Amino acid sequence: MGKEIINIGLLGCGNVGSGVVNILSNNGAEIEGKIKTSLKIKKVLVRSLDKERPAGLEGVQLVTDAQEIITDPDIQIVVEVIGGVDRAKEFIKGALKNGKYVVTANKDLLAQHGRELFQLAQENGVSIFYEASVGGGIPIIRPLKHCLAANKILKIMGIINGTTNYILTQMTTLEMSYADALKEAQEKGFAEQDPSSDVLGKDAAYKLAILASLAFNASIEMDSIYTEGIDKVTLRDIRYAEELGYKLKLLAIGDREEEGIVLRVHPTLIPQNHPLAAVNYEFNAIFFEGDAVGEIMLYGRGAGQMPTGSAVVADIIEVARLINHQVDSDIMEVEFAPKPIKPLSSYKSKFYLRLKAIDQPGVFANLSSIFGEEKVSLDMIIQKRKVEDTAEIVLVTHHIVEENFFKAIEKIEALPAIKEISQIIRVENKE
Amino acid sequence: MGKEIINIGLLGCGNVGSGVVNILSNNGAEIEGKIKTSLKIKKVLVRSLDKERPAGLEGVQLVTDAQEIITDPDIQIVVEVIGGVDRAKEFIKGALKNGKYVVTANKDLLAQHGRELFQLAQENGVSIFYEASVGGGIPIIRPLKHCLAANKILKIMGIINGTTNYILTQMTTLEMSYADALKEAQEKGFAEQDPSSDVLGKDAAYKLAILASLAFNASIEMDSIYTEGIDKVTLRDIRYAEELGYKLKLLAIGDREEEGIVLRVHPTLIPQNHPLAAVNYEFNAIFFEGDAVGEIMLYGRGAGQMPTGSAVVADIIEVARLINHQVDSDIMEVEFAPKPIKPLSSYKSKFYLRLKAIDQPGVFANLSSIFGEEKVSLDMIIQKRKVEDTAEIVLVTHHIVEENFFKAIEKIEALPAIKEISQIIRVENKE
Repeated sequence: MGKEIINIGLLGCGNVGSGVVNILSNNGAEIEGKIKTSLKIKKVLVRSLDKERPAGLEGVQLVTDAQEIITDPDIQIVVEVIGGVDRAKEFIKGALKNGKYVVTANKDLLAQHGRELFQLAQENGVSIFYEASVGGGIPIIRPLKHCLAANKILKIMGIINGTTNYILTQMTTLEMSYADALKEAQEKGFAEQDPSSDVLGKDAAYKLAILASLAFNASIEMDSIYTEGIDKVTLRDIRYAEELGYKLKLLAIGDREEEGIVLRVHPTLIPQNHPLAAVNYEFNAIFFEGDAVGEIMLYGRGAGQMPTGSAVVADIIEVARLINHQVDSDIMEVEFAPKPIKPLSSYKSKFYLRLKAIDQPGVFANLSSIFGEEKVSLDMIIQKRKVEDTAEIVLVTHHIVEENFFKAIEKIEALPAIKEISQIIRVENKE
Repeated sequence: MGKEIINIGLLGCGNVGSGVVNILSNNGAEIEGKIKTSLKIKKVLVRSLDKERPAGLEGVQLVTDAQEIITDPDIQIVVEVIGGVDRAKEFIKGALKNGKYVVTANKDLLAQHGRELFQLAQENGVSIFYEASVGGGIPIIRPLKHCLAANKILKIMGIINGTTNYILTQMTTLEMSYADALKEAQEKGFAEQDPSSDVLGKDAAYKLAILASLAFNASIEMDSIYTEGIDKVTLRDIRYAEELGYKLKLLAIGDREEEGIVLRVHPTLIPQNHPLAAVNYEFNAIFFEGDAVGEIMLYGRGAGQMPTGSAVVADIIEVARLINHQVDSDIMEVEFAPKPIKPLSSYKSKFYLRLKAIDQPGVFANLSSIFGEEKVSLDMIIQKRKVEDTAEIVLVTHHIVEENFFKAIEKIEALPAIKEISQIIRVENKE
């Protein structure tokens, strides 16, 4: 039964592509033993034929025109690891139209054009696999689709951007400033020269869109995700957070509420004993809450050549099994429909607020009465060092509707005694 | 394509069985939407027809003779959740011989008779699913078989017994004695009245056998697993461990070494910043190291009606997909062959040693020279409170061959100045 050899066309041979080549070359025999099929890279799309050929590509045809892969009748699986949106989209569409299964690690593309591509896959009787698009080598997509299939997923909450987690970990453990930590991350290769997609939360938002689609069976538009980066986080806030029993992390969060789903990426304080609080440096972790299974966390390396390659090869193996069983694949992605989105403004959050006030009698009474008017109740208060006539006050609220909190903030800002609203950070804490 | 209704026969309707009924009744519509098939419990095996029928079983036929399920031609999936070994084995064999797929949570049975049952499944063109047998609702079996399929698994290390983890967490956080913590766990229902299978490490050893089979593609005999429980762990050791930067956990560990695999369950010190150190109370977590993916950890509730039910229903859904695609299933389990087992005595471990000695000059010199003879080098030393003429000494060694360590211990025990070897615990620490 089944094909003895399955041919793969590799679009791109950069970081992840080399990882794929590497794994198939190192572990190919063991994999062949498991699936009774030999996985062979037949052609690789490269930019130039002059560059040195990576090890493991002996006897493999290098091409500079993607059509030679997309239209090759011997190739059953096209692996897209060139990244970017436009070219990748064009190539994947071509591959699907030619009846090829597609494996991709491209989160930007799937978050923005997933619906169109899944539809096209269905029309052509094939499918798209994308385990590597979120969380690198951590098993996430397949556990969500299969292992947790019996559950209504109530919440997803993840550290899914390694760059920002590395920066925040360095700030926390070495007491570095944001600017210094970013610079060091760039020097070490953990952050790009233009770090904006990571530090502004965009990368995490793309990944959240993919996760939330699967968790909530919904088609997600990027602009329904509230996105805030870590570029305004200061060491001062990290220290206060520690004093209050929290750790500061950039979290991507999806909540299933009665009125709709709430999607957001923002710096977040989480209790120090929460499993996510122990996820440091470039590690990623995704926390799920299912109605049956309760709390689950999946942890590992969210990026890097070999971990991401591991996820891509797992997908290739899955497609090979699929091809040899000659069955239709799961096509549930095409059925994702838009779901009601609940705006963050009507969501109940807990807030950390840091502000500077002139140290004079009555300031606290003014603050309290404004909070009272907007039904904002307080959980914790720290008031410390006075510098000349200025006092710094840190507050943590109980859970309150965001709209009310920001109305209170507007009124507080207008008080003459308030010199500055220095920081506002959301807090995730069941209690 | 495919069947519109798939009929399930449920063997047993206790804790886990009721969870399965519950989940299918609550989330059945959503599941049906995903897989385009209705999952119907047709018959349930109960002990007595007089007992009250759990909610969600309206219109379901209760039977007291398993044959009515096993031989029913309308039933495609038999779910075994009665537990125990002999009856469960007999029923599963009957179901397989009648061409039914089997879903089971029975770790004792699979660890002891898995090979025979997988063989029988293959002969009958069906298969056995067992996600719930290890780690309750945590996705483990499927990620190991699929998501990490590209990897050579080098190490597995897990907290896979909730009872002992609960007891150790209570001892650590509340400074309770082992006896008190065990008693409290029994009162709260976290430990059985006869706790021996949990506290002596047997339950963890069964689960390790199942995990190691999959991770190392090996058929595992139970007697190749070194098994030591937590019944000799004292609060004193937990405190010393904390002082040395460690936490004490009952770990199940499998290592792939060149000469063979090493399998063991024992109390273990792990560094406080290791992700497993933060896994507390009844939670479970399994840590894998793959050659490509690096370090992965899967965390969640390892037991309980709904989490375990979640895993059983995930398996049922998988079987339903399989039936409707009418393909042969993965049958790799039957190919597991015995693999060389490396004895623990030749494995390199790091040890924690606590002993009592008469406080007289030269004792330490004697110890040191014995360690030197056996090539045992020391990493950390604590010597504290003298009570009358007795000093307590705590040592942590570097990595050394177990055999040598125990030779040194024998010599040390024979020294006249040594009053007692109070404790020996292995330490897992890469450095």
